[in-house]
Amino acid sequence: MTLNLKNLLNPKIKQSKMGEFQELQHIAGLEISAVSADLYGDGRDDLTLFYFPDGANFGAVYTSSKITSANINWNLKVKRRFVKALMVNTQNANAFTGIKGAQALKEIAHVLSKQLTLKSSQSPKGVSDVVKITDLLFASTGVIGEEFPGKKIQNRIPELVKKLRKEQTKFVWFKVAASIQTTDTRVKVAYEECKIGNKLVRISGIAKGSGMISPNMATMLAFIFTDGLIPAVFLNAILKKVTATTFNSISVDGDQSTNDMVAIFATGKAKNSKIYNILDPKINEFEKALHRLSLNLAKQIVVDGEGATKFITVEVIGARSMSMAKNVALSIANSPLFKTAVGGEDPNAWGRIIMAIGKSGENIIPNKIQIKFGDYLVAEQSKVAKDYDESEVKEYMKWGSIKIQINLNIGNSLFTAYTCDLTKRYVEINQDYRS
Amino acid sequence: MTLNLKNLLNPKIKQSKMGEFQELQHIAGLEISAVSADLYGDGRDDLTLFYFPDGANFGAVYTSSKITSANINWNLKVKRRFVKALMVNTQNANAFTGIKGAQALKEIAHVLSKQLTLKSSQSPKGVSDVVKITDLLFASTGVIGEEFPGKKIQNRIPELVKKLRKEQTKFVWFKVAASIQTTDTRVKVAYEECKIGNKLVRISGIAKGSGMISPNMATMLAFIFTDGLIPAVFLNAILKKVTATTFNSISVDGDQSTNDMVAIFATGKAKNSKIYNILDPKINEFEKALHRLSLNLAKQIVVDGEGATKFITVEVIGARSMSMAKNVALSIANSPLFKTAVGGEDPNAWGRIIMAIGKSGENIIPNKIQIKFGDYLVAEQSKVAKDYDESEVKEYMKWGSIKIQINLNIGNSLFTAYTCDLTKRYVEINQDYRS
Repeated sequence: MTLNLKNLLNPKIKQSKMGEFQELQHIAGLEISAVSADLYGDGRDDLTLFYFPDGANFGAVYTSSKITSANINWNLKVKRRFVKALMVNTQNANAFTGIKGAQALKEIAHVLSKQLTLKSSQSPKGVSDVVKITDLLFASTGVIGEEFPGKKIQNRIPELVKKLRKEQTKFVWFKVAASIQTTDTRVKVAYEECKIGNKLVRISGIAKGSGMISPNMATMLAFIFTDGLIPAVFLNAILKKVTATTFNSISVDGDQSTNDMVAIFATGKAKNSKIYNILDPKINEFEKALHRLSLNLAKQIVVDGEGATKFITVEVIGARSMSMAKNVALSIANSPLFKTAVGGEDPNAWGRIIMAIGKSGENIIPNKIQIKFGDYLVAEQSKVAKDYDESEVKEYMKWGSIKIQINLNIGNSLFTAYTCDLTKRYVEINQDYRS
Repeated sequence: MTLNLKNLLNPKIKQSKMGEFQELQHIAGLEISAVSADLYGDGRDDLTLFYFPDGANFGAVYTSSKITSANINWNLKVKRRFVKALMVNTQNANAFTGIKGAQALKEIAHVLSKQLTLKSSQSPKGVSDVVKITDLLFASTGVIGEEFPGKKIQNRIPELVKKLRKEQTKFVWFKVAASIQTTDTRVKVAYEECKIGNKLVRISGIAKGSGMISPNMATMLAFIFTDGLIPAVFLNAILKKVTATTFNSISVDGDQSTNDMVAIFATGKAKNSKIYNILDPKINEFEKALHRLSLNLAKQIVVDGEGATKFITVEVIGARSMSMAKNVALSIANSPLFKTAVGGEDPNAWGRIIMAIGKSGENIIPNKIQIKFGDYLVAEQSKVAKDYDESEVKEYMKWGSIKIQINLNIGNSLFTAYTCDLTKRYVEINQDYRS
């Protein structure tokens, strides 16, 4: 069952039905719970715990912002790439909350480590396992600069730990994927599986992030869980590589949050043969599966873009380097003028593409550029294409998913960016995001 | 008479009355005319000529886009910084128009040089002066990628030359400033004078550009005329320096057009004493006057921003370098999220400022940052300020002109950027810009 972006773009089915999603599978070695700490004042789930009784290797990519939230600062200090739990809260980003915010998080970590240690001592194994605060990771998302509700969260931790479930049905995944959301209008989940050697390996992923960006609702989180047995150092390297062309290829309006975080956790319960070398071909399948899953989640974030009515793919080919292709693609995907023109279904959006290519600063050769909208060649040789028929392209611009291809014709590198249109609804949402 | 930005922001007086503007003065050695080549099909002026019978030194700053229009390419080839005329057309940018666009411009240049040579031979001086095509500069602004109406323009050149007026009243300036506009809703003019030695020197300037940007209406033009006697090399150096903190300090959404051009022309008719050295203190007054005039025009462009309801000043102080201050200021001024939040009059816009400072990539120290809205200290020491009263700032956000100050507290450099809010009206204008 693959994600149908066109369906998701249909406003009539904006209320996601679970049946439309990939069915996420249980990941052995992972326990999950979600409760409400009443941070929103309406009883919705806002506190989520992912617990690995036997620990998990992990890899993570964090925001490159120079101002990071208390939880990102905490995670950056976790040096060992093997953890016992990840706790997520929504509503408050714990960013620009000063020493108090950091202190509140530390207290939470102590309470959580105590409760998990207690739980571990009650396990049928009979072996008490001390969970240290350095075994814990945290993610926060919500408003920047408001006091962090540390006490409210602390008080709910016993209940959160008590409710941990060993089995994840698709309903559990759905509940949990909803619990990490803020302004999102759709739940974002994806599933892939692959073989490592002769063992089947599962990968279940969830994400939050409402399209373009909304940094006061700071912002994109993605958590991926696998039962694969993969050394943390490889996990981290693969995640970094995959993120570059998936989560980092979606337009974030040029804006980036203080809290962005993508993490992958591997419990090793699939018991595949060990991998000693990142060049081991056995890991190829896993990398491909992780790429598919990440791209799927990234696209879901774009589709759920604030006020978005169109999904836009910007493919740049024929560049001298991937960096050139990426720079040109994101210059287009981040241009408010290009995005409004697509929203207006105006074929002359190609004039704005020319503008965006020019301002990228890359040494392109204007005369060599070819621009296609879907299958229609629109411009080449520094002018509108000979057989260009505006009425055809006008029809094409009415589609829910628009593909733009720019061939720079000066090399062999390529990059694809994904974005959505910029609409009046986007302005409305972002003017009133706290009301 | 200084420009009152607050008045200009009042929608009730959106229809500019000429009395509100500075009265531009006659510049000796300059003749002007504007006619209609009917490029818009409604008879409005769209073709403008600035003629210097005895020539003028000039300096110019062009777009740094890698894709430039035919006229910018032409101007870049004019090596001698002494010209006889500047012709401006609106409606069509002559950008991405291929070899045909360049050829059409060349033909226009030939017709114009012939007509001006003819006029010169008829002058009472009785000395025939050959105007070469290399004595001519061109500016174009309008839609990108549509066929350039070369013939229509050519046909109107005899009339354009015939109508040249030696005297510029404020009415002539007003007519001409209107003739170079596209989507602008207000005429943009500014006047300054200064002394060079014991001589009074006049500077009259006009500009076009509708705020944020509108690259298919490509885009910002500013033409400044002075009777000062200033060597071209100094003129160019001073213009470049002044532009950095005026025309290049206004937010253009990160977008930049293929046709942007700021130029200054000096006829020398003020007969001030010669300047042999750029460090000559006599030139200081001129530089200051040019800076005031350029900043005035730049602010008028922001005020006329598409859909703008608020004028925003973003002042960054206490930076390690001007480049750091500029980078942080423009990161804020270019953030759609910050701009929509200001449009929504939300005091929590400061959370978006934090985001924008963080994503600038500059090595700031979060704990040292102080943010002020007007006189109100909003955030410091990585958190909301102790005495912050949201209700006060909420009142302040209702003003038409909002000043944001960010003190990085790590150095002595500063930069100020100017921008406007991002509104639903902006999206409307840019979705329907061709209808």
